[in-house]
Amino acid sequence: MADPWQDYMEIGIAVARQAGEVICEALKNQISVMSKSSPVDLVTETDQKVESMIISSIREKFPTHSFIGEESVAAGAASILTDNPTWIIDPIDGTTNFVHRFPFVAVSIGFAVNKQIEFGIIYSCVEDKMYTGKKGKGAFCNGEQLKVSRQEDITKSLILTEVGYKQNPDTAKTMFSNMERLVCIPVHGIRAVGTAAVNMCLVATGGADAYYHIGIHCWDMAAGAVIVTEAGGVVMDINGGPFDLMSRRLITASSKAIGERIAKEIQAFPCGRDDGKD
Amino acid sequence: MADPWQDYMEIGIAVARQAGEVICEALKNQISVMSKSSPVDLVTETDQKVESMIISSIREKFPTHSFIGEESVAAGAASILTDNPTWIIDPIDGTTNFVHRFPFVAVSIGFAVNKQIEFGIIYSCVEDKMYTGKKGKGAFCNGEQLKVSRQEDITKSLILTEVGYKQNPDTAKTMFSNMERLVCIPVHGIRAVGTAAVNMCLVATGGADAYYHIGIHCWDMAAGAVIVTEAGGVVMDINGGPFDLMSRRLITASSKAIGERIAKEIQAFPCGRDDGKD
Repeated sequence: MADPWQDYMEIGIAVARQAGEVICEALKNQISVMSKSSPVDLVTETDQKVESMIISSIREKFPTHSFIGEESVAAGAASILTDNPTWIIDPIDGTTNFVHRFPFVAVSIGFAVNKQIEFGIIYSCVEDKMYTGKKGKGAFCNGEQLKVSRQEDITKSLILTEVGYKQNPDTAKTMFSNMERLVCIPVHGIRAVGTAAVNMCLVATGGADAYYHIGIHCWDMAAGAVIVTEAGGVVMDINGGPFDLMSRRLITASSKAIGERIAKEIQAFPCGRDDGKD
Repeated sequence: MADPWQDYMEIGIAVARQAGEVICEALKNQISVMSKSSPVDLVTETDQKVESMIISSIREKFPTHSFIGEESVAAGAASILTDNPTWIIDPIDGTTNFVHRFPFVAVSIGFAVNKQIEFGIIYSCVEDKMYTGKKGKGAFCNGEQLKVSRQEDITKSLILTEVGYKQNPDTAKTMFSNMERLVCIPVHGIRAVGTAAVNMCLVATGGADAYYHIGIHCWDMAAGAVIVTEAGGVVMDINGGPFDLMSRRLITASSKAIGERIAKEIQAFPCGRDDGKD
């Protein structure tokens, strides 16, 4: 079979688009917010509703497949990646943005078989940008092929990261000292738009040269990892070693040189693993 | 006269749109980059070309008016606000974004008489969003009226700032310790999209609750100040005192409460004034 997952991906794209429509509709109404692990770890009814919708639509077609979804895991489901075909789902990547109507909100759907990600779909619904990547077949946004910047010089780079609340004050200190070290190299600048999935797509488009994040989840990066790789970028661990989807650590970059330079500058802090294998 | 500056504003809008088209066209081609005060203070031929175009188009209609433009000032022109009708122009707000094709780039045009800003125009050209605000007449984006979030609780707020290179390492330290103090209040998050003008518009839309910046210039905030105020927001100095267009210091917020709380948390660092009256 020349293109084994094409049908699966088309179903995923249709479901992501439908989910995005639900999210955009919800943005027009009052949003009621709950919190999860901390006062700033937010969730809404829309996150839960959209995840159920995505999983039930896909399960109807593929009843034997496995699922790892942000909200299912929050509700107690296991987050273990097996060899079984597995859909890895973030119904709203950028829930805080969604709550504030800050205009970057994405549906992220990755698909893995034998623990390898085969394709990824990220629908940035307010912007109406559908990003896709399939292993060996390239990455696209609304049909246009994506290429990373290929920048290799860190002093000419634009870097993305996330700036969120950390319960441990030492962790917050490390997060900011990492940013300070990068700014002082110097780099051209640091940007933070509040969704991991869109950040990875921005690297894939060449609009930024790298994105790093400690504390990210597998559902935030499964789809993005294949999109950025297929656009010619690299994904690696925070220490510069091999990328591990369940590690909660990510550097993605336009080149190995930039990724490794970031790995050299930044310091990790403990964040646990998604699969609990700490 | 019921609406004394309407004709002026319409001319400004037409010029801003034309400037945005030149910028979007330039984004399709190779961009050649020069640096100004530091290796990361970038400028391109397009900045200079677009500013000349804006000034000459307006000067043709209003030969007696004054101009303060980012690139004219960089080339040695004075940056003094007088009582004369004055157009305050940033041809490309977000030059670093422009260089990287990071998709937030804006034309910013403010108009002041007797040192009071009468209207502001910000055209975020990649997004095709035309923001306008006129004193006493409201703020709009593509014709839709804007309202700030009215959030008063800092712990439920989303804050915008800029994360750029600072030549003085102590300044960089203060910049990050300010962010750290805000994150630890806690706030919902910090975002940075790389253009002051768009940041101010995001507060005006209600998509974020505040934006603060030390080291900003009058051409970055003249238009935004009237847009955010007309959307119901506040502008103030970094210390919570009155807003001063030439001070290079800005807090803008959805409410006085949020603005003053940010003023209480953050520490200023010296950045000089735009008019040299230090």
